[in-house]
Amino acid sequence: MNPCELCAGAGGDVLFADSRLRVVTVDDALHPAFCRVIWQDHVREMTDLDQIDRQHLMAVVFATEHALRILLQPTKINLASLGNVTPHLHWHVIARFDDDPHFPAPVWAAARHAVPRPLPRDWRDALRQQLADALPPGTSA
Amino acid sequence: MNPCELCAGAGGDVLFADSRLRVVTVDDALHPAFCRVIWQDHVREMTDLDQIDRQHLMAVVFATEHALRILLQPTKINLASLGNVTPHLHWHVIARFDDDPHFPAPVWAAARHAVPRPLPRDWRDALRQQLADALPPGTSA
Repeated sequence: MNPCELCAGAGGDVLFADSRLRVVTVDDALHPAFCRVIWQDHVREMTDLDQIDRQHLMAVVFATEHALRILLQPTKINLASLGNVTPHLHWHVIARFDDDPHFPAPVWAAARHAVPRPLPRDWRDALRQQLADALPPGTSA
Repeated sequence: MNPCELCAGAGGDVLFADSRLRVVTVDDALHPAFCRVIWQDHVREMTDLDQIDRQHLMAVVFATEHALRILLQPTKINLASLGNVTPHLHWHVIARFDDDPHFPAPVWAAARHAVPRPLPRDWRDALRQQLADALPPGTSA
């Protein structure tokens, strides 16, 4: 067995973390506004979590969606929990734009061009601040 | 403007419905165990719903995931709310198998073969029954 990469490392630049989960930005060459919300423990499916943990994870997914909408005004938000390669619960939260390399196809389809959409230079710091403001301080790492 | 296809029609074979949402199975040639949970109203993003509606929608997504796991023992469940083409809230709930046409890639990537995985003949009826058993009777259509 290979070790799980989401157990072995953070999986991105950590913007928010508590004892149960972390929010990271991912270095995706074509989609810079690509976040993940990663459960800290190695759990496979949403229905392996109890209802309290499930609601906490989704609340943070939706807080991330909300912050991305406020900061970047995307054409659409894409949410996905797949985990076929890395079966350790993580949500993709992706701000999509009508001029991005895949729109309107999912980011996992073939790209139509390879020019990432420019974003404000400080969007990651602004997102970190939005999450700190939106989520209960008691849950911060 | 084209009319929204999820406002104009059911979008699949309806297994469960209440005043707020419906669960359907989709005729996907390569992935027969492909369900969608569709919000009845034309709403764009999860964060356009209030918290009560958001929790109801996710509870039904997770009930669908749970029923698919019980019935089909998939290798992995894939959940996604994309809506780039049809920006009317709907969740893809897909039972994935390690011998399915795309595994471990997402179903939106290029397929590696075109042979759908066989499923028990009665799985749709069993799923309908599972959802009827799992979800509050007061919310049934």
